[in-house]
Amino acid sequence: MAAENFSFKITHTSDHCRARSGILSTPHGSIETPNFIFCATKGAMKSISTADLAATGAGIILSNTYHLMLQPGPDVVEKNGGLHRMLNWNGPMLTDSGGFQIFSLGHGGVANEIKGRRNFPQNVKSLLKISENGAVFRSHSDGSIIHLTPEISMQVQRKLGADLVLAFDECTPFHADRDYTAMAMLRSHRWESRSLSEFKKSDDGNQALYGIIQGGVYEDLRRESAEFVAQNDFFGQAIGGSLGGSAEQMHAIVRMTGEVLDRERPTHLLGIGKIADIWNGVKSGIDTFDCVHPTRLALHGGALCMPNSSDGKGFMNLHNARFREDISPIDESCDCHCCRNFSRSYIHHLLRANEMLGGYLLTIHNARFMVKLMDDIRTSIQRGTFPGECKKWEISQKP
Amino acid sequence: MAAENFSFKITHTSDHCRARSGILSTPHGSIETPNFIFCATKGAMKSISTADLAATGAGIILSNTYHLMLQPGPDVVEKNGGLHRMLNWNGPMLTDSGGFQIFSLGHGGVANEIKGRRNFPQNVKSLLKISENGAVFRSHSDGSIIHLTPEISMQVQRKLGADLVLAFDECTPFHADRDYTAMAMLRSHRWESRSLSEFKKSDDGNQALYGIIQGGVYEDLRRESAEFVAQNDFFGQAIGGSLGGSAEQMHAIVRMTGEVLDRERPTHLLGIGKIADIWNGVKSGIDTFDCVHPTRLALHGGALCMPNSSDGKGFMNLHNARFREDISPIDESCDCHCCRNFSRSYIHHLLRANEMLGGYLLTIHNARFMVKLMDDIRTSIQRGTFPGECKKWEISQKP
Repeated sequence: MAAENFSFKITHTSDHCRARSGILSTPHGSIETPNFIFCATKGAMKSISTADLAATGAGIILSNTYHLMLQPGPDVVEKNGGLHRMLNWNGPMLTDSGGFQIFSLGHGGVANEIKGRRNFPQNVKSLLKISENGAVFRSHSDGSIIHLTPEISMQVQRKLGADLVLAFDECTPFHADRDYTAMAMLRSHRWESRSLSEFKKSDDGNQALYGIIQGGVYEDLRRESAEFVAQNDFFGQAIGGSLGGSAEQMHAIVRMTGEVLDRERPTHLLGIGKIADIWNGVKSGIDTFDCVHPTRLALHGGALCMPNSSDGKGFMNLHNARFREDISPIDESCDCHCCRNFSRSYIHHLLRANEMLGGYLLTIHNARFMVKLMDDIRTSIQRGTFPGECKKWEISQKP
Repeated sequence: MAAENFSFKITHTSDHCRARSGILSTPHGSIETPNFIFCATKGAMKSISTADLAATGAGIILSNTYHLMLQPGPDVVEKNGGLHRMLNWNGPMLTDSGGFQIFSLGHGGVANEIKGRRNFPQNVKSLLKISENGAVFRSHSDGSIIHLTPEISMQVQRKLGADLVLAFDECTPFHADRDYTAMAMLRSHRWESRSLSEFKKSDDGNQALYGIIQGGVYEDLRRESAEFVAQNDFFGQAIGGSLGGSAEQMHAIVRMTGEVLDRERPTHLLGIGKIADIWNGVKSGIDTFDCVHPTRLALHGGALCMPNSSDGKGFMNLHNARFREDISPIDESCDCHCCRNFSRSYIHHLLRANEMLGGYLLTIHNARFMVKLMDDIRTSIQRGTFPGECKKWEISQKP
């Protein structure tokens, strides 16, 4: 049934690299790809409403199964009519399997590791046990013991009701050696097969399942995992697991994985979304990205901007005293609600005064920035000008 | 010049009490009265934008001179083109004189005292000296020594650029005795005369000045202060100072003051805005109110509602576990963005998950609630049904 309600059509390809543009259709509408998936982690975009987000032109959001399992719980979301209804979001939506957070919290800092950040705080280890059956962990919110298996993940995601759902896998950390990575990958494949079986049991055409390609930093494992996913009846595929210890290694792994995966399927790169990483991902054939970076940066006072207007950093820190009397907008050429109506000086004041409105306005700007970035990327692929456009956006690779 | 750009026309009066309805016009448009002035204390409505507020139908906002003097400073606001431009608010706006916060912080907890709250925390005393010239205080933000006089207050308010500005006065606390209250009142009158002179020096027709009626809980002093204000060339008048130790005493003082003031002028009741207090104020002839109650309540998880739907409390605490699975909106009959799109269950979840969006949505609801309340009040005055409507809204007087 999924085939009727979901489709992915590649409309343009680049002559110079694996970049392609296409249309991903779901029961809640279509998005053009490449595209960026905004994170409504706990069912909210932190400071802005889904209506505000839609006004920026954003087309797709995600929520995290782990967080929603614990609070408010899948039954409450289902009672609310599912995530779309509860969040008042009428476009496409994705949920992850819940695995990432369990293993991230469990192994300590996977989220930092997959992006090559080394100075991360060690999280409290909450992962109690991984077995063939699944994972047992302690809730970070009330300390209760929770089991998560491929079957439970699919049942929970069915209740949450997003359009695109992810198979349950183990996200292995950077510090895992080859043997552990290989063993965990094979177990993840078995979990993904069980996810697919469970998914099919209740498939009513309203959801489509993505398989996850694991294998860490090892080319032969990535190839093996890509082949496993290609051989199974997943609608889409996502690249998960460790992407190495640096931005350069991440780009190399994504490129290498891009060469071995099924080119016909929509391909998502999990948890990646800095500007330079997006250009590099698109170059390797990635269709969708997700990351808390634009919203998190906003809540810390940062406004995304072109590298040439920010010393190559790619963002402007509005806390900086030099903005105190700067009455220009963040970006003269930006058409967002923030830039059309408010000055840098005012945003600086809001941050100094601890007014929530500062983060709100910056979130709107950053969301609009990402929407325009993805639009630039798509247009350049469609017009055959991708390499030149990519150069214009050159941003320091430093995280 | 002010006379050309500002006007107050009483269009309807009640047969049963001093309630009246009218139109207050400023260079930034008109509002119908009675009306509620929303608090953008530090130049922001905390979690919602001025565009969100305007969408609720709200017509007028205020900012506090004290806060803006310290951060970002009047020169920065002026450089931004004034408050209207800086906040992107194109309707009428008011600023206070800065006196209230100085004396509130200085005497310790005046804000609590004028509303008869007894169990308030003692604030750190920052008021260093009151003299005939004005007040000297220590900035709560950086510890610097700041002088505030009638002249400085008017100059600062000129730079801030609100339509309606307030004369500089001393807000005497509830614990002040009759002698102190009388002495301070007379000094406030001299400060108000100096405010008026300073105001006239730079009067370009873009601002109109309100005198303040002091006198604490003493009827003869209130009468004397009302006469002073009436005899001077103020556009409007505000009731300030202590309003007693209980809601009952507050209503009595407002009623008594309403009997002796100039009935032709727009009359503001400073810092009061609970539902029952508004109905009582209107009954005594008050035209405008201001209070942080609706926005502060929202940020604490409270939704304003009709007394009959909240055990007479007048609000619903969305933190309450009974809302966990309640998928109805806060108020079925409410047309706000929150009630039209989101469930109590979702708002409860957002509060539990510490998502800023919860406060945002509740602020929108509470603002819309206040707008509809004031609309109900005006309509009932215009139709001669004020006493009956007032009964329908009977709310416990307990704070």
